[in-house]
Parts: sequence; structure tokens; C-alpha cells
Amino acid sequence: MRIEIVAVGSELVTPDFMDTNSLRLTAGLNDIGLGVAFKTVVGDKDRDLASALRTALARADLVLCMGGLGPTEDDRTRETLARVLRRRLVFRASIREKIRERFRRRGWPMAASNLKQCYVIAGAEVLDNPNGTAPGQWVETRHNRIALLPGPPHEILPMFEKDVLPRLKGLGRGLSARRVIRLTGLGESAMEMRLKPVYARTPSGVTVTTLAVPGDLSIRLTYTGAGPAAAAEARLDELEAAVERAVGPWIYSRDGRGLEEVVGGLLRERGLTIACAESCTGGLIGHRLTEVPGSSDYFLESAVTYSNRAKTKRLGVPAALIERCGAVSAPVARAMALGIRRTSGADIGLAVTGVAGPGGGTARKPVGLVYIAVAGGRGAAVERCSFAGGRSYVKFQSSQKALDLVRKSLRPRPAKAL
Amino acid sequence: MRIEIVAVGSELVTPDFMDTNSLRLTAGLNDIGLGVAFKTVVGDKDRDLASALRTALARADLVLCMGGLGPTEDDRTRETLARVLRRRLVFRASIREKIRERFRRRGWPMAASNLKQCYVIAGAEVLDNPNGTAPGQWVETRHNRIALLPGPPHEILPMFEKDVLPRLKGLGRGLSARRVIRLTGLGESAMEMRLKPVYARTPSGVTVTTLAVPGDLSIRLTYTGAGPAAAAEARLDELEAAVERAVGPWIYSRDGRGLEEVVGGLLRERGLTIACAESCTGGLIGHRLTEVPGSSDYFLESAVTYSNRAKTKRLGVPAALIERCGAVSAPVARAMALGIRRTSGADIGLAVTGVAGPGGGTARKPVGLVYIAVAGGRGAAVERCSFAGGRSYVKFQSSQKALDLVRKSLRPRPAKAL
Repeated sequence: MRIEIVAVGSELVTPDFMDTNSLRLTAGLNDIGLGVAFKTVVGDKDRDLASALRTALARADLVLCMGGLGPTEDDRTRETLARVLRRRLVFRASIREKIRERFRRRGWPMAASNLKQCYVIAGAEVLDNPNGTAPGQWVETRHNRIALLPGPPHEILPMFEKDVLPRLKGLGRGLSARRVIRLTGLGESAMEMRLKPVYARTPSGVTVTTLAVPGDLSIRLTYTGAGPAAAAEARLDELEAAVERAVGPWIYSRDGRGLEEVVGGLLRERGLTIACAESCTGGLIGHRLTEVPGSSDYFLESAVTYSNRAKTKRLGVPAALIERCGAVSAPVARAMALGIRRTSGADIGLAVTGVAGPGGGTARKPVGLVYIAVAGGRGAAVERCSFAGGRSYVKFQSSQKALDLVRKSLRPRPAKAL
Repeated sequence: MRIEIVAVGSELVTPDFMDTNSLRLTAGLNDIGLGVAFKTVVGDKDRDLASALRTALARADLVLCMGGLGPTEDDRTRETLARVLRRRLVFRASIREKIRERFRRRGWPMAASNLKQCYVIAGAEVLDNPNGTAPGQWVETRHNRIALLPGPPHEILPMFEKDVLPRLKGLGRGLSARRVIRLTGLGESAMEMRLKPVYARTPSGVTVTTLAVPGDLSIRLTYTGAGPAAAAEARLDELEAAVERAVGPWIYSRDGRGLEEVVGGLLRERGLTIACAESCTGGLIGHRLTEVPGSSDYFLESAVTYSNRAKTKRLGVPAALIERCGAVSAPVARAMALGIRRTSGADIGLAVTGVAGPGGGTARKPVGLVYIAVAGGRGAAVERCSFAGGRSYVKFQSSQKALDLVRKSLRPRPAKAL
């Protein structure tokens, strides 16, 4: 069963747009044990579109074609596919009624341009579109199954779930299971070196893929094959244990959750509260912690003390200390963490101060130098870090390291420093 | 001149990865007046890869093929392309020397697996790769020009700029010019309705594309065609004037800059400082303002006062006021903005308080209800907003609206309320 996804639209061959629908479609297919062999992106010129469709029909058994079903002149997918299949387009009054009703509910007359959406390829089944005017179509030929789907995500995704996936059940290899392990504090190439023995012993049917941004790595294990489910899980368990042996110390999540969610979960579990004092991260740590629903239960506040005056006024960092050591220094980080803990009344005080760049670096305190302090009931621990990359990367990596230090301080065996 | 980009890699047909290189390649091609007709993504199975390459060579004049040049078993692009072209692979000792030297600098021996990277398709030119072990290749045949490029962005992008684009100069339609106009405060469908007359009068050679996320819209005007440059700019000027007539009140940027950068520029220009008091945005406004290099010149601090206690302690919002009106209310927003302005000493105090969801909403104060206040020398103005979408979207739209209110207060004609 070879599958091709064809995304149609002139915007998709510009530098500004990406086809993201195909990721969701692929996930749905993987879940029933099917994989994607090809993805094609093509503009809406008749000749190119016809070429892309002919190629897909020749090399794939199932073609999922999306986009170009709208009411404008440029929307030509329906017409081009009919021509490539040498089938007529048939007018369906029932579709016209649905579109009319849709306009009526909004108090508008149906536009004449929508009439073209009422045509169906001869022999196709109509796939209802509750979220837009263009219905989908399901066509079977001697060699191919073809789904013709609208482009907007809120139209295609429900239609794919409801009308396409059920038609594919039983065609797949039966079963898919996946696991996402996330790491921080390790470089990408160091991870790849350590994973070599894991790749070597990957059991059949399982694929290992990795995804890396500076400060955050993901290892994804996917099983695709025959049942039973317990056997698939056992294979993933075995591989996860091998991953654990290779990179265990850097793993912060075994279920795909982000670091802010893991830290939030630990705080909630232990009934603790946190407050932050952020300088170079500019509010990013507070922003990340508050992306998690319900975070108001444990997140009290963040003092984004960018100016030195704010560090002194809000956190009680002595002006003389800043004067003597500089705002980017271990003593100031420590004073910030202790200060935010004291003034907020939180159980944990987390502080970050550093040089995000691109300006502001010196020979002694270069861009990327960041101090992070975690204060608890037993005092504060400070870590000196050095991050590479541009301003955004330095900020992100700082937030990641800071959250990870909090995570480590909350593990069953608490860190000694706290 | 028809161009196809082929991205090779098994990870690219999973739900986890997207080919983003092609966007940068497309931008570079557009800049010299070339457009992309097809993009294909294919895994690293020999049969699929050969099929994708044959198709590309048959329908495109120029094929940019990336990925699959690494040292592992799975990297088969070089070998497969040679087979499809019916050309031999030739060993080049000079490549081996470069790879050896690369390893030597890191203190490692060259791995045997890297030997396959020393083979070049007969007749190809070698494209130097200063950022990795796999060199690129440039192949010309009777019908095609082919660039074989490595997959990692930091390897392919410099190589594309330095060795591929110069080989394509003169093949394009000569000239490309683009302009990015950004808007906020308008819905996507409202924008599309208003732009209809603009689409109708788009001059030849110019394309208009739009990109929308809730709270941020972009309109991109691209001219591709023959020179002179002044004529291209004149066409874009004309179209930009039409866009201005259609959606002028919502435009915040005519040069693609983000709202945080526009606001930062206005603050710097007018020699003013800002401080924020954030509740539901959780630090996002501070984070966005500090993404701009040099923002420490005008951004003093942000008090992320998530808890009511913090609102009272940090900003002096009377506990009785919170008790009486609720933390999400116009009086509290106003008190927060005045409070942060007073305590920070900034010229402008910006405050946001709202219900980000998914929990915490009530009939009177539903999820998405947000109050935003801007305080200046003449008092504070409060705006009541209602945003749709999940937690992240509510936070982003709140930050966007807040920054836009500051922008409006800083325009040549200052807002009355300040």
C-alpha cells in the first residue's frame, strides 16, 4: 500500500507557506499502520497540477489530494483530476442546497462562483464538509483510491478523521504505537554518538527518529506492524530501556510533555509554589510556565527585572553588589533568587541573569554567559552556563536550563544544595 | 525554466518533521526572478527515491535535490541519482583529504563510513562544504541542471548561496521585489473581503499572498519579471496604496517588522521607557519586547503578577478593589498600569489581566475576556477585549493587542486618552 499526499496551491510554492496538513494526515495514517511514501507540493497551474496528479496515480495506490477546491478561478483541482481520470463532472443539486443553506444562515445570497463546487467527478462519493462550502470526494478506480479534500485545516482535518480514515481501516499493517522521549543538556551530535548502539539493536518494525533544537532534543520511537498491541509495547519498552542506558541522565520526559509541563506537574505533586526573577530571559520562563493550564495553582509571579534599578527595588539586590560584581554574576543571580523567594513567599525562587546579545558582551563576560540560581528552604545554588547562538536561542536555552535545574531539585532525591 | 526541489529523508515522511530548507531556497530563487514549480518529499527507500528523481528529471529543467548524502547506510541519494543518470561514481582523493582534515581538527580519526562521501557522479563539479563532511555536487546533462545538496540547514544554506545561486543568475526573469505589510486587529475573512478590489487590480507580474494567525496578518506583494527595478518598485507602490485604502487602519508595519520591533523603534525614537504588569500573558509581553536587540534601552521591567497577592504587593493594587471587582476587571487593569508606571518610573505603564482558559471562566467573565490598560502622563485608558481560541492564542492575541495600543499611543498624533 503506497500512499502519496499531494498539496495543491500557489502559496505553497512561495517562501511564506508550508503544507502542515500533511503532518496531521500522516499521524492519522501511522495510527492505523500506514506510512506515507511521497509528498508533493504543486501550484495551481493546470499543466503542473495535471503532471503531479498523473505521477501520483502512477506510483501510489492511495492518493490524498488537498487544496484547490475553492470557488475562485484559481481553484482547479476538481476539474484537473476529472480530466486526468478521463471522467465527466456531474452537477449535484443536493450540494447546491447545502451551500445555499450555509449562506442563508449568515444572511447572504449564494455567490455564483460557488456553483462550481456543486460538481462531482462521475462515480465519486461525496464527503460532507460541515466547516466549509467545498465537499470532499472519494474516487475509486481500477488502480487507485483517491481522496479529494479541501485545503483549510479546519475543513480537511475533521473530514479526514470522519470520512477518509474509516475507509482505510484494514488496509494498514494493523497497528502503530509510539513513544516520545525528551532530553535537555546534551548536544545533538553527542546524542547521536551515544545512540549508535540503540540504532544498531532497533527491533524490526520500529523506527527511531530524532529532532533537535538547541537545548531540547526528542527521540521518537514508532512501531508499525502486526498485532498484538502488547507485543508492540514490549518492543518499545525494550528500546526505551536501551535509550535510557545511552542518554538517561539527560531525559526529562518519557511521554512527550514539555519541560514546563513536567516541572508544573512536580510542583503540583509536591504542593510547592514557584516565583521567578528574570533578567536576560525577559519573561520567557513565566510565559512558558503559564502556557500550562492550571499553572496559577503553583506559579505566583515573575519579576522581569531588566534594569538594575528594578533588581534592587523589586528583589532587594544591593546596588553595591551589582556595582561590584556586575549584573551578570553569580552573587547577583543568587541574590535575585533569594530575593524573589523572600518577597513572593514562594517555596522556590528561580533567577536568571545573563548576556543575551548580540550587543553587551565583553571579553570577561561574553554573549551567551548566563548565571542561573535556584533558591529553596536550604539556601541557593548557582550554575554558570555558556550558550551559543543568537539572542532567541540564548534566551530559550537559559529558560530550558533554569526549568531543568528546578526539575532536578524536585526529584524524589532532592538536590543537595537545597 | 521549471524548477523542482526534492527533499530526501525518511524523517520527512513522518508526522514530526517538515522540510523547511525549501522555503529558504525558494526565497533565494525568487530573488533572482525564478519560481518553484514542484516540491517533492520522499523517504530513503531506493525504489521510491529513484521514482522521485526520475519524475523530477522528466518534468523540471533544474532539480535541487537535498538530503541523503550522509555516511550511514540509509543515505542513498548520491548512489541512486548516479544510477538514474546511468553514470558511474568516481572516487576523489581530494575529498577524502578534506574529511580527514576535518576529523583531525577535532582529534578523531576519520570513520570508514565517511569514505562513501568521497565519491562523485562522473562529470559532476564538487561543491565545497565548509560546514560538514558531505560535499555538494553540480551535474549538467542534456536536459537538466541538477544540484545535489546536503540536508542540514547550516550546511545547505551557505552552499546554496555561494555555489548554486551564482550558477543560476541570468536564467531567471531578471528581477524580483517584495514587500511585506503586517496588520493586527482585523479578522482573516474580513481582510480577504476588503482585499477583493486589490486582487482584482493586481498588475501583471505581481502576486499577492496573505498569511494569517489569530491577531497577526501579513500581506506579501511580490514582483517577478523584467527590469528596470524602478518600474517594479512603482508597481509595488501602486499596489501598496491600494492595500492601504482597503485595510489602512489595521496596518502596523510596512517593512515586515514585528509589532515588538515597531513599538521598540517608536519608544527609542521618542526617548521613552516602558514597564509592564502582566497577569494572563504570564511574561509573554516582556519576552516579546526583549526579543529585540537593544531593548534594554527602553524596556525597564515587567511584573508578572499572576497571584492577587503579587498584584497588591508589587503594584499597589488595593486588595479591596480586587475583592470588589475581581482580578479580571477594568478598574484592576487600570490600577495595575498606573501602579507599574509609578513603581518602575517608566514613561508608559502597560497592564494586561484576563482569563486565558481553559478553566477559570464564568458566565460573566468567560474565557478570552481580557482588559488592557495603557498609562501615560495624562492618566490611563482601558480597553475590554474578547479573544477566541485556546490558552496560547488568548495569550498571544492579548500581547498583540497590548503592544498595538502602545503603538497607537505613540503615533505622531497621540491618543486622546494619554
